[in-house]
Amino acid sequence: MKIDLNSDMGEGFGPYRLCDDEALMDVVSSANVACGFHAGDPKTMARMVRLAKARGVGVGAHPGLADRVGFGRREIPTDADDMKQQVLYQLGALASVARGEGVKLSHISFHAAMGSMINRDPELATSIMRAIRSVDTDLIVFAMPDTELERAAQSNGLRTLTLFLADRAYDLAGQLVSRAVANSVIKDEASVRARVRQFMETGTVTTIEGVRLPVRARSILVHSDTPGSLELAKIVRSEVESAGGRIAPANEVLG
Amino acid sequence: MKIDLNSDMGEGFGPYRLCDDEALMDVVSSANVACGFHAGDPKTMARMVRLAKARGVGVGAHPGLADRVGFGRREIPTDADDMKQQVLYQLGALASVARGEGVKLSHISFHAAMGSMINRDPELATSIMRAIRSVDTDLIVFAMPDTELERAAQSNGLRTLTLFLADRAYDLAGQLVSRAVANSVIKDEASVRARVRQFMETGTVTTIEGVRLPVRARSILVHSDTPGSLELAKIVRSEVESAGGRIAPANEVLG
Amino acid sequence: MKIDLNSDMGEGFGPYRLCDDEALMDVVSSANVACGFHAGDPKTMARMVRLAKARGVGVGAHPGLADRVGFGRREIPTDADDMKQQVLYQLGALASVARGEGVKLSHISFHAAMGSMINRDPELATSIMRAIRSVDTDLIVFAMPDTELERAAQSNGLRTLTLFLADRAYDLAGQLVSRAVANSVIKDEASVRARVRQFMETGTVTTIEGVRLPVRARSILVHSDTPGSLELAKIVRSEVESAGGRIAPANEVLG
Amino acid sequence: MKIDLNSDMGEGFGPYRLCDDEALMDVVSSANVACGFHAGDPKTMARMVRLAKARGVGVGAHPGLADRVGFGRREIPTDADDMKQQVLYQLGALASVARGEGVKLSHISFHAAMGSMINRDPELATSIMRAIRSVDTDLIVFAMPDTELERAAQSNGLRTLTLFLADRAYDLAGQLVSRAVANSVIKDEASVRARVRQFMETGTVTTIEGVRLPVRARSILVHSDTPGSLELAKIVRSEVESAGGRIAPANEVLG
Repeated sequence: MKIDLNSDMGEGFGPYRLCDDEALMDVVSSANVACGFHAGDPKTMARMVRLAKARGVGVGAHPGLADRVGFGRREIPTDADDMKQQVLYQLGALASVARGEGVKLSHISFHAAMGSMINRDPELATSIMRAIRSVDTDLIVFAMPDTELERAAQSNGLRTLTLFLADRAYDLAGQLVSRAVANSVIKDEASVRARVRQFMETGTVTTIEGVRLPVRARSILVHSDTPGSLELAKIVRSEVESAGGRIAPANEVLG
Repeated sequence: MKIDLNSDMGEGFGPYRLCDDEALMDVVSSANVACGFHAGDPKTMARMVRLAKARGVGVGAHPGLADRVGFGRREIPTDADDMKQQVLYQLGALASVARGEGVKLSHISFHAAMGSMINRDPELATSIMRAIRSVDTDLIVFAMPDTELERAAQSNGLRTLTLFLADRAYDLAGQLVSRAVANSVIKDEASVRARVRQFMETGTVTTIEGVRLPVRARSILVHSDTPGSLELAKIVRSEVESAGGRIAPANEVLG
Repeated sequence: MKIDLNSDMGEGFGPYRLCDDEALMDVVSSANVACGFHAGDPKTMARMVRLAKARGVGVGAHPGLADRVGFGRREIPTDADDMKQQVLYQLGALASVARGEGVKLSHISFHAAMGSMINRDPELATSIMRAIRSVDTDLIVFAMPDTELERAAQSNGLRTLTLFLADRAYDLAGQLVSRAVANSVIKDEASVRARVRQFMETGTVTTIEGVRLPVRARSILVHSDTPGSLELAKIVRSEVESAGGRIAPANEVLG
Repeated sequence: MKIDLNSDMGEGFGPYRLCDDEALMDVVSSANVACGFHAGDPKTMARMVRLAKARGVGVGAHPGLADRVGFGRREIPTDADDMKQQVLYQLGALASVARGEGVKLSHISFHAAMGSMINRDPELATSIMRAIRSVDTDLIVFAMPDTELERAAQSNGLRTLTLFLADRAYDLAGQLVSRAVANSVIKDEASVRARVRQFMETGTVTTIEGVRLPVRARSILVHSDTPGSLELAKIVRSEVESAGGRIAPANEVLG
């Protein structure tokens, strides 16, 4: 069974770095590259593309709201057309930088507040999926299962890859438990390993209430902006492989 | 004789506007659209593309240095790879926004300090022309004649369109006289009309020293960020037409 | 009767201007100077201070949210301590630039979304008034009457100057009618004149429903970022003066 | 013998940190706090002030050019009045945030390119020292010995504190050897210790050519933005103390 392992990359800026992108790039199969709005800059983007290319890692756009100081985590009121243009802008910018290195983008994954705003608004999701389709019909949309984003992508003829988070608690509705809740982030290695193994072997996750739910996912997302993200990614990878899975980029997983 | 009339457009930002883009768009045949670094933002870019599309005006990228407060006029030390990525980033961003409106970019025209830095550095010019070629082989490069930019574009297989400025004094070397020099900017309507007519009829310009020089140009550039730019553009257009010329976008002029 | 006439000033940025600050400075008695977050920059701020000083106009801080592209009009989620620090930062920045010109700040007036967020949140208002008091006990707080801002300023020992808007409709609660509502902005000169005269002579305003309400105000605010603001300010001034009032800075009005 | 130990602090931004400010604050006696132009933001500035206050560390302004992506290291052409206003703006902003915490600024230390531009231009240095004097006559100016900055500060009646860098090679002129030169940065602990001891015991430094030069300095500067800066600061501190010196803030050293 092929499964993708993806992480947000290049989320530094100027002199700053949020994680060891070089090391993390050795572990993931898909890199969601920040596009200069919530994080990243042209030089960092080119560096990410080169790192990914050298390792056969898929390169995707990771657009966010134009809010560096808030790291794209704050919902800033933005009209629908403006949001659409912000997505097109960032997507095109990375596509062009990647093409300069001979790399074609494989996917798109929305960051933080931008993702939340799209996920709950079917009209916004549809408008943005149509826009993406108008510039690249091959792009794979990374989405949590059963969201407006997933639905809008599919109904507009875009392929989707659904995500599983191995270090986050799920509730009975199959949604992530808010980070504000105790035990919502799973930090000990044994538990993460157990969750990856269960996901690989049975396609399920045990909710915070203790109930087994099916998880429809083809990719595991590791957030790079948390301490220990590199170790977490390595743990996920080793557990996937020891369960007989093979880490592969989105295109291969869907192909 | 077909001749292009181009101007920098969409150089506002958020609540700000530098000129009446709507009115100017009725006069020009090519719009050099600011790409969000020295000026412009995604929403403004989309507005420019729609205005241009509705009028059959060619849309080009107008990348600049990332310096809003200095309006891209200050030479900020930047390494060659970084500059290249900044060009690719901005070019791709606008191309994507334009494609969202069903418009393909026709050309690229470099702004202020970025243009100066490229114009005098053959290695930088070559590196950037190669990068542009890798993302769009059809793009027309707007250039002053006999610059490193023109040479690099041509030697890398890109088409060029050379520029004439009707309201700026030229020196014996065929170069623009610095704005710091008295009478370097020609402001009275009669003189501008006479210069356009002379250019159209004889392909020459009279230098500040009073010598006639041939001018190899297929496009007239009107800077939009000076007071009276709209009137200037109208004067140029009417004089071109009364001399029997036809204002047409870059693609048609070269085509 | 002395009355203050104030306007937001220096709301340009880099190459941009929102209004003719030089001309407007001849008409107002208090200038609320943008402090570099929603608009303005150090150079523009110094220019405003010099203009005001030469005309005896009072200089006040006009802090806003750090949102240039949205012009500080969007409510961006910000925690209370962060907002307080943003106010102190901007206030201190302008105070220092002003002091470099030998000018002491007279007042503070909050911009757009920052103002709205403070106006409706008594804890936030109190926290910010305390902070202001810790850096300058003489500062006059410009406020709409009967707001959390006015109450917090007064209960923390800061003087306040209440505002009247001559070109905006009021409702029965004495609040401004939203700009989204028809006829909420009064544009014809005769009506504005009539409202200023009524305010001067009877201390009342006629609401959009046609009811006369008392207006407790010692300053008239003219927004500079609307077309015609200069003319509006002149109309207000001439009407105040022909009604026997005298335009004077906040310190004099309260003094 | 009292000697100051200072470092640049709060040079993170939004989600980013350049060093462990909390730990470093335990070691230094003066904190040069970034003021929001090259790095820092109001919230981070307030955090630095609180950390410093709790430890009796002196708080100084560390203004830089408005260039986050270049971290204030690039010389951006800026006219003299603009540079002066940028200094006043940043100084006032931090002074106000500090005052909100009941802290008075003790000093000012210029960052990177801004420092270099001031250091070599006597007119610029004079203009900025006069401006500083107009807002705070007590401020101590941190300067390398025998620079235009030191001279301008002294001739304008401001106290200065001269700096020694324990981990940087000096040349025969008593200047720092450029980082581009091999062995210009001293990294091994024993050598740094030896240099601090020699400085403490003899007031000299051995140049890269092997010559002993007197060093007129009352403060040791440790750059926080290099890997190992925390360890370096601890080494310097322990060596100063074992040589019988006492680390004390600028005010006390000059006291």
